[in-house]
Amino acid sequence: MLAQADHYHPDLSVVLKHLLFSGGKRIRPTVALLTGGMLGGDPEQLVILAAAVELLHTATLVHDDLIDGAILRRGIATLNAQWSPAATVLTGDFIFARAAGLAADIKSVTVMHLFAETLATIVNGEITQLFTARGLANLENYNQRIYAKTASLFELTSSAAAILSSADERTIEQARQFGYYIGMAFQIVDDILDFIGDPSTVGKPLASDLRQGLVTMPVLYYLDMFPDDPDMHTVMQGVNLDEATIKRLVAAIRESGAIQQAMQDARQFVDGSLDQLADMPDNEEHRALESLARFIVSRRL
Amino acid sequence: MLAQADHYHPDLSVVLKHLLFSGGKRIRPTVALLTGGMLGGDPEQLVILAAAVELLHTATLVHDDLIDGAILRRGIATLNAQWSPAATVLTGDFIFARAAGLAADIKSVTVMHLFAETLATIVNGEITQLFTARGLANLENYNQRIYAKTASLFELTSSAAAILSSADERTIEQARQFGYYIGMAFQIVDDILDFIGDPSTVGKPLASDLRQGLVTMPVLYYLDMFPDDPDMHTVMQGVNLDEATIKRLVAAIRESGAIQQAMQDARQFVDGSLDQLADMPDNEEHRALESLARFIVSRRL
Repeated sequence: MLAQADHYHPDLSVVLKHLLFSGGKRIRPTVALLTGGMLGGDPEQLVILAAAVELLHTATLVHDDLIDGAILRRGIATLNAQWSPAATVLTGDFIFARAAGLAADIKSVTVMHLFAETLATIVNGEITQLFTARGLANLENYNQRIYAKTASLFELTSSAAAILSSADERTIEQARQFGYYIGMAFQIVDDILDFIGDPSTVGKPLASDLRQGLVTMPVLYYLDMFPDDPDMHTVMQGVNLDEATIKRLVAAIRESGAIQQAMQDARQFVDGSLDQLADMPDNEEHRALESLARFIVSRRL
Repeated sequence: MLAQADHYHPDLSVVLKHLLFSGGKRIRPTVALLTGGMLGGDPEQLVILAAAVELLHTATLVHDDLIDGAILRRGIATLNAQWSPAATVLTGDFIFARAAGLAADIKSVTVMHLFAETLATIVNGEITQLFTARGLANLENYNQRIYAKTASLFELTSSAAAILSSADERTIEQARQFGYYIGMAFQIVDDILDFIGDPSTVGKPLASDLRQGLVTMPVLYYLDMFPDDPDMHTVMQGVNLDEATIKRLVAAIRESGAIQQAMQDARQFVDGSLDQLADMPDNEEHRALESLARFIVSRRL
């Protein structure tokens, strides 16, 4: 990944290094390597896939943080907090280009196509979010949003790994669904951590979604139970809340049982992912993928 | 090209239509279709290539105009003049994604690779320009800049058209050089039109490069002749000039013969492009490509 900035403007190396060394769990490359490893894929091709997926993810984060005006990601200053907007737009574009270069290095027209489609899905999801009124409390909308934002890239990762392992159609489809399920679970847990995580380890302020008027799974459950909470209505009208109200809402959501219900949904997605692995070759990578899926719903970062 | 926004957020259709119907000469798609037509390529694949190249170009313009804060392009309001920066960044990303999708539709790993490399070259050129001091008067820097900005995409267009026509290595290389030469000529003429064009047909204010402290071919020649022009030094120190000084400089550059010298360079590039066509099949498309190359140095838009 670092080498992708070689032979270009030297500041691009500096900034790529900053981005790649500012944390991140590398869960997408892990899924690529384990899924392909389980299915007997060529390690060299899988490493290229893993790098391409992580760089695509990195590029979307750079533009996301610029758009959200985010100052911190993973507890470290975002690019846009340090650079001009122009440099940030172009750095994101450059990383997109290098991700596309790696995707082309895989030498599979099918995988290349999946990359392009997934990027369109991710960006379309962001545009839809941008143009959708704040405070939309709707499960269908939430599911579409987290699919576009997170699950689509996990789906690409696991299905591309299966394609590169010359798996049959049925296995490729199961691998795709595996990625879909763990992607959905991963994002729900991420949205839960926004309410219960320690801000210093999560790396961003508490309830950052709520502050933006973004309704996530815990909030949907809370609204089911307390449809008349006046502070919640203020959030959903897109009005900025003061810190005391945010704290009260976070405490109310934590105590309501909404977190546990959302976690139950995440567990169901993880169970769905484990079902997809049932017929896959029984080897070390298979067991590691199972552990990874279970880890998603056990992490308290 | 319009169909590329189907099945996504409806505003993306509206905005793509706005972008595609706001003028533009479609010279890149023309080069794709004529080069491939001359070499006997499959028209269906060439149409996809032509659309992919034009969309890639369109995406780079969307981000460029945002970065430059440009209000007008081709005499029509730019996207960023009407939309938020966030929507503009994402629209550019979406068009990149759809251009990549079309590039993947071509089903050639080699062409896909050329697309990714060219996008990296274009973005790297913009980053280099952003981080380079204004007023750098240096022919090498100028040539690198117009290669990255313009000639690299023409080079991709003509070489990909030759690859898709199953041309031999030598023909592909000649096609690449043809694209390089007309791309360089095209940009030099564009830079000349910034000084002598009618702003209402060029679609942007007179001397827009000079106003940004960007030194182009006519300015390089002018500086050769009048190295001590104090207004020119002010430009090169990146100081904003008043309208009267801009007008004086434009008149001085027009009268100096610098325009004619720059046009002579553009003609040499066009001659270079015609040389590359010498051994190509003698047919209608061949003659149309020759006319197109000559048109570049005869246009007074």
